[in-house]
Amino acid sequence: MQKSRKLRSRKSGMAPGSLVHVGEIKTERPEITLIEFQADELREKRFASIAESRRYEPSLETLWLNVYGLHEPEVMAEIGRRFNLHPLVLEDILNTDQRPKVEDYGDYLYVVARFFDYDVATKTLGSDQISLVLGRNFVLTFQERRTGSFDPIRERLRADKGQIRKSGADYLAYSLLDAIVDRYFLVLEQLGEATERIEDQLMHNPKPRVLQDLHLLKREILALRRAVWPLREVVNSLQRGDSAFFKPDTLPYLRDVYDHTVYVIESLESMRDLIAGMLDIYLSTVSNRLNAEVRALTVVATTLLPAALIASIFGMNFKEMPLIDSPIGFQIALATMLAAAGIMTLVFWRRLRR
Amino acid sequence: MQKSRKLRSRKSGMAPGSLVHVGEIKTERPEITLIEFQADELREKRFASIAESRRYEPSLETLWLNVYGLHEPEVMAEIGRRFNLHPLVLEDILNTDQRPKVEDYGDYLYVVARFFDYDVATKTLGSDQISLVLGRNFVLTFQERRTGSFDPIRERLRADKGQIRKSGADYLAYSLLDAIVDRYFLVLEQLGEATERIEDQLMHNPKPRVLQDLHLLKREILALRRAVWPLREVVNSLQRGDSAFFKPDTLPYLRDVYDHTVYVIESLESMRDLIAGMLDIYLSTVSNRLNAEVRALTVVATTLLPAALIASIFGMNFKEMPLIDSPIGFQIALATMLAAAGIMTLVFWRRLRR
Amino acid sequence: MQKSRKLRSRKSGMAPGSLVHVGEIKTERPEITLIEFQADELREKRFASIAESRRYEPSLETLWLNVYGLHEPEVMAEIGRRFNLHPLVLEDILNTDQRPKVEDYGDYLYVVARFFDYDVATKTLGSDQISLVLGRNFVLTFQERRTGSFDPIRERLRADKGQIRKSGADYLAYSLLDAIVDRYFLVLEQLGEATERIEDQLMHNPKPRVLQDLHLLKREILALRRAVWPLREVVNSLQRGDSAFFKPDTLPYLRDVYDHTVYVIESLESMRDLIAGMLDIYLSTVSNRLNAEVRALTVVATTLLPAALIASIFGMNFKEMPLIDSPIGFQIALATMLAAAGIMTLVFWRRLRR
Amino acid sequence: MQKSRKLRSRKSGMAPGSLVHVGEIKTERPEITLIEFQADELREKRFASIAESRRYEPSLETLWLNVYGLHEPEVMAEIGRRFNLHPLVLEDILNTDQRPKVEDYGDYLYVVARFFDYDVATKTLGSDQISLVLGRNFVLTFQERRTGSFDPIRERLRADKGQIRKSGADYLAYSLLDAIVDRYFLVLEQLGEATERIEDQLMHNPKPRVLQDLHLLKREILALRRAVWPLREVVNSLQRGDSAFFKPDTLPYLRDVYDHTVYVIESLESMRDLIAGMLDIYLSTVSNRLNAEVRALTVVATTLLPAALIASIFGMNFKEMPLIDSPIGFQIALATMLAAAGIMTLVFWRRLRR
Amino acid sequence: MQKSRKLRSRKSGMAPGSLVHVGEIKTERPEITLIEFQADELREKRFASIAESRRYEPSLETLWLNVYGLHEPEVMAEIGRRFNLHPLVLEDILNTDQRPKVEDYGDYLYVVARFFDYDVATKTLGSDQISLVLGRNFVLTFQERRTGSFDPIRERLRADKGQIRKSGADYLAYSLLDAIVDRYFLVLEQLGEATERIEDQLMHNPKPRVLQDLHLLKREILALRRAVWPLREVVNSLQRGDSAFFKPDTLPYLRDVYDHTVYVIESLESMRDLIAGMLDIYLSTVSNRLNAEVRALTVVATTLLPAALIASIFGMNFKEMPLIDSPIGFQIALATMLAAAGIMTLVFWRRLRR
Repeated sequence: MQKSRKLRSRKSGMAPGSLVHVGEIKTERPEITLIEFQADELREKRFASIAESRRYEPSLETLWLNVYGLHEPEVMAEIGRRFNLHPLVLEDILNTDQRPKVEDYGDYLYVVARFFDYDVATKTLGSDQISLVLGRNFVLTFQERRTGSFDPIRERLRADKGQIRKSGADYLAYSLLDAIVDRYFLVLEQLGEATERIEDQLMHNPKPRVLQDLHLLKREILALRRAVWPLREVVNSLQRGDSAFFKPDTLPYLRDVYDHTVYVIESLESMRDLIAGMLDIYLSTVSNRLNAEVRALTVVATTLLPAALIASIFGMNFKEMPLIDSPIGFQIALATMLAAAGIMTLVFWRRLRR
Repeated sequence: MQKSRKLRSRKSGMAPGSLVHVGEIKTERPEITLIEFQADELREKRFASIAESRRYEPSLETLWLNVYGLHEPEVMAEIGRRFNLHPLVLEDILNTDQRPKVEDYGDYLYVVARFFDYDVATKTLGSDQISLVLGRNFVLTFQERRTGSFDPIRERLRADKGQIRKSGADYLAYSLLDAIVDRYFLVLEQLGEATERIEDQLMHNPKPRVLQDLHLLKREILALRRAVWPLREVVNSLQRGDSAFFKPDTLPYLRDVYDHTVYVIESLESMRDLIAGMLDIYLSTVSNRLNAEVRALTVVATTLLPAALIASIFGMNFKEMPLIDSPIGFQIALATMLAAAGIMTLVFWRRLRR
Repeated sequence: MQKSRKLRSRKSGMAPGSLVHVGEIKTERPEITLIEFQADELREKRFASIAESRRYEPSLETLWLNVYGLHEPEVMAEIGRRFNLHPLVLEDILNTDQRPKVEDYGDYLYVVARFFDYDVATKTLGSDQISLVLGRNFVLTFQERRTGSFDPIRERLRADKGQIRKSGADYLAYSLLDAIVDRYFLVLEQLGEATERIEDQLMHNPKPRVLQDLHLLKREILALRRAVWPLREVVNSLQRGDSAFFKPDTLPYLRDVYDHTVYVIESLESMRDLIAGMLDIYLSTVSNRLNAEVRALTVVATTLLPAALIASIFGMNFKEMPLIDSPIGFQIALATMLAAAGIMTLVFWRRLRR
Repeated sequence: MQKSRKLRSRKSGMAPGSLVHVGEIKTERPEITLIEFQADELREKRFASIAESRRYEPSLETLWLNVYGLHEPEVMAEIGRRFNLHPLVLEDILNTDQRPKVEDYGDYLYVVARFFDYDVATKTLGSDQISLVLGRNFVLTFQERRTGSFDPIRERLRADKGQIRKSGADYLAYSLLDAIVDRYFLVLEQLGEATERIEDQLMHNPKPRVLQDLHLLKREILALRRAVWPLREVVNSLQRGDSAFFKPDTLPYLRDVYDHTVYVIESLESMRDLIAGMLDIYLSTVSNRLNAEVRALTVVATTLLPAALIASIFGMNFKEMPLIDSPIGFQIALATMLAAAGIMTLVFWRRLRR
Repeated sequence: MQKSRKLRSRKSGMAPGSLVHVGEIKTERPEITLIEFQADELREKRFASIAESRRYEPSLETLWLNVYGLHEPEVMAEIGRRFNLHPLVLEDILNTDQRPKVEDYGDYLYVVARFFDYDVATKTLGSDQISLVLGRNFVLTFQERRTGSFDPIRERLRADKGQIRKSGADYLAYSLLDAIVDRYFLVLEQLGEATERIEDQLMHNPKPRVLQDLHLLKREILALRRAVWPLREVVNSLQRGDSAFFKPDTLPYLRDVYDHTVYVIESLESMRDLIAGMLDIYLSTVSNRLNAEVRALTVVATTLLPAALIASIFGMNFKEMPLIDSPIGFQIALATMLAAAGIMTLVFWRRLRR
């Protein structure tokens, strides 16, 4: 399902740079919002149409344009024209199955990342692509649908909290990256809880279903890891100051984001390791149960079979049989049976103790 | 089969540079096509023989010569002479079991890659070698047989779509590499579907056959990985701009191809990991079944054996036996049997609950 | 439990640099102690309140300020103001779920590390964050609670033992790092003992519980390793002399600390490897037991069943049966039974020997 | 056997540089052959004794001296004196348990490699050491015994095929290295076939012996890998042009050899991976058989035991028993038995289906 | 035991550089021997006391001081004073649980390594620390006890064999390192033999004890590997010529030692791999036995139970039963039993063949 969709090829022979949306459509119609600001002022604008946006001329120092919904190529084309974006960037924005990466196009930096959601009910991970373009004095963000993850940043901008308004486009870009990585912690927490739930089940009431749950969980962890790993590289190259778009003042903040991505990866590795161990525990629990059952069977069979044999012997129809006419023959037979059962039990237990 | 063929040694003591075709012949006779083009013009030519091609003089800016079928050394020798190719290059083109690699010979760049096909019916991977030589103003491609993978590029050239005609030989080479990597996505998708099919079977109706399917799938994934890994290195060295044959304008496009190869490798690793997990699931499903069977046996044996013993006891032929003459003796015996079975069931279940 | 707490996100949309304590509160009220010293003098001071500390002016060469309890942001704010600390440093000090790291802020070096405690009774690891700020002539340490690990260093300072008083802030910082890494050896020892205890149990009296103990131990080892790994990198970058805060004379000492962290990591890896092996041993012990039980059952069944069949045969009620009227019929029947049992035993053992 | 011999220490306290042969003697008496050549001429000479060789003065441009059999130190000493070899080189040549390596001694390059043979009958790998010394205008090769691997090169020299006569000592050295690596392909192929043979056996007729075969195969693959890995490094350092002994013209050829060693290593890794998977398949085949057997037992026991109980009940000797006097009593009893068996079968199958 | 001792922390809060012996005392009283030599002369001296050594003035070019037994700090202090050693070096010499390392203190090089002994009887590894200090014209060695490993070097010095007397302190240091690494080969050989012994046992007569032996062996291999790994790095950094204490002439010899350490590590890795495989073989051997036993049980039960049922049926006490009065009733019953057993055997075998 999700997996096979992800593996699908891009465009199969189309010219690179063609503006075609590839991926699921998650938003009815694109929504374009613009926030422009400088230390002492902030203006917000929501555009109903491309035409409307075309007439607008921003005048403040820094500009943040956000687009929800990527399936209308003409919107992209217009934005690409205005901000002078490379055709490959536009194509990558529209193709929502990209791997996280950062690319420096000289006039701007293009960053691709992913948002993840863990659906506790279906035990599956969903993800949205988020593209970010950072120029000298603008930030563009492109999302597949409204997720609300950037709302706190908008709030901070409006309320002029912290240094965000004074610090320009690169600090804004950092804030957005930080919000993205923060989402991973939420997913980590949910996966961690799912792991613990299975662990509990395993310790107290292991059922065959637990195996499938472990398999699903492992698959999701692998998928998440595949997305975070390149993101780590992205943030690492940014925090090393490889690109001129982030001012030295912003670098310590990026280092912080980098630490978080490393933490996420290490936690995922640990989870994977624990899941492998849990599978072993399940398998040995099954073995232990088998042992218990076989032992029960063995105990019953070894104690009763000798007695049954004795009974059968005295049930034979020979004319002449010892004890058969004795008044205590029956009692002697019973006693022999008991003795046989007793000896077998003894032998059996001593044998297993060895 | 396929594997052992692949491992065969090259020429066993022949001088390097000898023009001998090594590998399966997949095309009846070589087919040579030439496309020469510049921004405003394009000419196509199909040669019936080497002699014919010898008389042809290309005159446009960029030239693309494609050969299907590699088993006629004289064709290779002529092309080698015309484009001044190193004997080792010619030998590598003819030896169709090469590892993907890139080599810079000063006047041209030699790239080896592989096309893969997954045959869903036989569950095996087949592959063709594709050699590409990129000079200042020409591209040569050599394929074992006609696969149709480059047809969209020919279409784009003819229709003058995108920038392909204007951008010279290096952009054409990029387009071809892109088409090659695109094929991997197709194979990935098919392998992914095969994985999911086995997964489904495993969850709902696991049979011993599933093991062999997993083994085959794993083998194909390993083979594919062995081919993509060096290809990744090839594309990586190209996109870093190590070679002067790709103009700076083309590098971002190569970076894109590189991203795709990385994605392919990561997907293969994930599949391998999932397959390992699936094997564990199969094994534990088998264990669970064993448990269920042993439990059934144990339940039956432990409840019936005591009753059978009692019946045998009253079947003994002693002259004097208690109850034997009582009118309700039979009923008492039956009741005792039931009681014994009940007690055993109780003990047995309590024991397993522990 | 502990795990899910650790994975929790930092502040969910708060501006970076906000002074909010994140984590468990382990100390009732912060406690601030100051030691200032130079080669020939030492002064100690314990502050009851921030106000009091504000009036104090240190005058000796080197200053060590230690804070226990991090949940009062105003304390942090005042210290940050006095020592001119970056807002991110203050935030990291207060957020006690940091990964070990070192950051050079030009005027000072910021180091985060962790103290670990292994609770033998509950078999769980607990940990405290310890932050260290090293300036030209001061060291600041921030701990979640009083652990006593730095007391020997205080003693050495007071008693003027070794070179600690003469060697300035960087040597003090080294001594503190050394004390931190020394704690890991204690935990290692405890984990090593726990491993040996389980090993013993496994060899002499393996019970299903052992599996859960192994799982818990593995989890704690993974957690510890996740903390030591980055610490190793921290100490490595310090001992290489990357930072100007450590004088060349102090570097050999740091190399020593580095050796210790490497040793800790290698020991953890070995433990992990041994634990994996122990699980295998447990599983095969279980299998061996199963074998013993099945063998007991098989022996009993194969020797008794033929005899029982013979008895049943002579228990049939046919009018005419051979031997039935013979005076030694019973003896012959018994002898046949014994012979059958003997043959079965023979066949059975020869079969298993094959 | 082979393994323990290999691990033996070199000389136990002897001075380094002592000329003592360490290893098995595989040739009766050393055999020394000399080929000297230049573009237009070639002379061959076989020396019966060291004395004879001492009198010989080579006069052509390039010289190739080959020695089979290394157990006569005086031969080595004389050659060492003539070509001015370092004592350590002579010692390494004589000690035939060396790891592949390359060492640059200024006046010449010393290369150690290994030839492998897979004995299909005993399923074991044997190996010979081959030492190669490359000077400005000479090549020396030292082998433990005659293997015939270099014969095609001798043929090419004599027939003046390809560029070998014109290209000097470094090209000759390359040709020899190429021949060595070519041998690995042969061994790879044999191991690959052995793997496939076991695979076939596993799929169609798995027997316990298969396990030991897998273990042996794995051991040989590990041994081969241990030898090829350093060889890859050797060839890599040569093809990078680290040494001045190989002219730039020869480097592309070395790159080719390097590609082959990489290919060998990757194939070995894949085989190892497949072998691990095959073990899992074997184990689960064993489990499946166990399941089939236990199921047979369970089916028989559960269907027959209830019937047997009923029969025993009517075999009791109570004076008064229901049905016992009825003319259709026997038929009713039989019918009840059949019904019981039917019910048990039903219950049993429904249970397993769950 | 050994393991937990090793993990113990160094000094728990003591000032670094304190001269306290940490570790087991293995020698009654320290023994100090001095060898001074130059190309044409050699003098040996054994000191009864520190006082005596204090009066001695060496006068030849190179000096080698060896100390057995490290528990008398005053000896160390005196040597440290004479050769001007850093307090940390003295501390490390006395603390006999160091990791192998090399440290350059400007005036001398400090090397720590370990000697290993494998006790075949107890199947455990013991180890001694050996410290080596190399100055311009002196070598100091410190050992926990007399092991005799350096005796051949003393012999060579006395007999003036090889170049050892002429080559100065660095060549002597190389000879000592070589002797140390040579010891590892001995241990490798013993471990290799232990592995083969277990392998043999496994193939011919697998017993549960084999598991514990494998576990012990694995533990020792891990311990050895942990010691050789850093030693490899030590020798590698020396052979690269990082330090000025080794003259260029000596470097090729160090390269030789480096090759040996690499060889040791690779052999250990292979052993580990083989041990993992051996565990799998043991487990599947156990499974195979289980199968054989269950099969025996199944065969007996399935062939005898139907017969027993038939016998029970004819043992019922109904008044009217078919065949019961027939003179060949008994024979018919027996024939039916045989037929039933035959059919069951047939069905059973066909079932397992599927």
